[in-house]
Amino acid sequence: MQSDIRRTLLEMFTNSEDEYVSGQKISDMLGCSRTAVWKHIEDLRKEGYELEAVRKKGYRIVQKPNKVSETELRLGLHTDRIGQSIHYEETVDSTQKIAHRLAQEGAKEGTVVVAEEQIAGRGRLDRVWYSPKHTGVWMSIILRPPLPPQRAPQLTLLTAVAVVQAIQEVTGISPDIKWPNDVLINGKKAVGILTEMQADADRIHSVIIGIGINVNQNSGHFDSAIQDIATSLKIESGEDINRALLMQTIFAKLEQLYDEYLTNGFKLIKLLWEAHAVSIGKHIVARTLTGSIEGFAKGITDEGILLLEDAYGQMHQIHSADIELMNR
Amino acid sequence: MQSDIRRTLLEMFTNSEDEYVSGQKISDMLGCSRTAVWKHIEDLRKEGYELEAVRKKGYRIVQKPNKVSETELRLGLHTDRIGQSIHYEETVDSTQKIAHRLAQEGAKEGTVVVAEEQIAGRGRLDRVWYSPKHTGVWMSIILRPPLPPQRAPQLTLLTAVAVVQAIQEVTGISPDIKWPNDVLINGKKAVGILTEMQADADRIHSVIIGIGINVNQNSGHFDSAIQDIATSLKIESGEDINRALLMQTIFAKLEQLYDEYLTNGFKLIKLLWEAHAVSIGKHIVARTLTGSIEGFAKGITDEGILLLEDAYGQMHQIHSADIELMNR
Repeated sequence: MQSDIRRTLLEMFTNSEDEYVSGQKISDMLGCSRTAVWKHIEDLRKEGYELEAVRKKGYRIVQKPNKVSETELRLGLHTDRIGQSIHYEETVDSTQKIAHRLAQEGAKEGTVVVAEEQIAGRGRLDRVWYSPKHTGVWMSIILRPPLPPQRAPQLTLLTAVAVVQAIQEVTGISPDIKWPNDVLINGKKAVGILTEMQADADRIHSVIIGIGINVNQNSGHFDSAIQDIATSLKIESGEDINRALLMQTIFAKLEQLYDEYLTNGFKLIKLLWEAHAVSIGKHIVARTLTGSIEGFAKGITDEGILLLEDAYGQMHQIHSADIELMNR
Repeated sequence: MQSDIRRTLLEMFTNSEDEYVSGQKISDMLGCSRTAVWKHIEDLRKEGYELEAVRKKGYRIVQKPNKVSETELRLGLHTDRIGQSIHYEETVDSTQKIAHRLAQEGAKEGTVVVAEEQIAGRGRLDRVWYSPKHTGVWMSIILRPPLPPQRAPQLTLLTAVAVVQAIQEVTGISPDIKWPNDVLINGKKAVGILTEMQADADRIHSVIIGIGINVNQNSGHFDSAIQDIATSLKIESGEDINRALLMQTIFAKLEQLYDEYLTNGFKLIKLLWEAHAVSIGKHIVARTLTGSIEGFAKGITDEGILLLEDAYGQMHQIHSADIELMNR
């Protein structure tokens, strides 16, 4: 089925909500025969839509497929760039890997790689990220900011703000951010964000933002090893969450913050980030690749770098680390 | 011809310098018939080697092909990693593009992409870099330093030092470095270096170092538009330069400096860089993507960033720019 016919058809069903849409109306709108309409309906069924057909009334959608396909993501999407080009696959090694390849081949800004399942999803430092089928948001977004590479850390913080705002809007939950971009709900991790870039000394060629969100997992879904530190939006809210809506909201929030950032700089983003941050003004341990530093988290710089004051009053600039809050 | 037979045969010719090597000796060393030897010699001729055959004396190489093929580059190469894996092509769009793809596919550290000619060679900020056939060094080197991305600028300076040392050793010319990595001979540009990276906030995944050197161009080779600012090693030294030897020397110098850097840090590299730098301690204009700053170049930081003091005494940190020396 052509993608624009499919979209028009789905728009019609969405607009009439629970009402039936007659075969005649569909045939008029699409400008095709009743037989053609029937074929289009069959195609939708093959894609996983459950459609009820009632004589003299017409058709209506009883159940949408539990998918985040291009059709689902573009329907009702109100952005200019982010999500306007979707690369969707059922199962991938990692969306990040595909996005890197697409970026290299010249994919335009806002291109999103989405999968229902990742079999080799990775987080920071090659840590495993479990991405089971149809339960989460597993995606990578390509941006091309006209900026020098030393400003990339700001985009990491910006993304955390966009994700937190979207979760808040869709679920009502208000997550915390642990520097730089761990998104926590009741102290447990629900979101992983990985920002990678291709750059030279002058400017960023592309930033690939990987976002993994545990959405509809039940508590039994999590391995006993991570049960105490991981959670999902469903566990925290008690409700099934519409993944496509969550992703569309992330696209919209991200685009809005990104435009603000490109126009007016990091100031407002920094304030928004600080409003959600739980790791600032506390005693913490920062574990970096070269060692651990304990101290007082004074704040972040205008570049997005963490300022940590140790017991001797010496200030450390932390570019990346695992942060642990101390109980004192 | 198998690559190891070819290498052994070329080693024999190289070791006996201008002497003839008898067909019997070759047949003994390679463990093959005299007819097979004759076939191997024919294969070498097809590759562009000019071989003289004299009755009762044997064979000797009169002229090697003017190429920087894998055979030429690996013969007599004394490095552990850099140049041990060579990806050679006659004509490419850009070696940098191929190296990016290979890095993405997991190519190991030290892999080098070499071409005789680039038809779309690019420098910083997408500026055109002319790379005509058989006259220069057009290559990209893949490194995988276990370092965070903010240390990448140090590798840019390190590469400039390696290239300057190699040119010095092979040609006797002692070039200058204009911050960060413009290599100048008598004020004209002979080398372009472009450092690109793939990284996340924690660490560099790969650094792709593109090196373009004008080697054997005559002054007539340069377009009138760049004649006053560009030069070649041949123009400056008055001699034809062995490109393969120059590249091997770069591989060796780069590996040596890189090992020193990974073991002991940037200190020694910084001193070596400063010893060749012409832009420090002078009045300069730094043209960045966002504007120009005029001032006194105080030096470089331990991160490789340029410190520029303007007329009001304010210190600017320059991450990347075009530098022009002022006459005052």
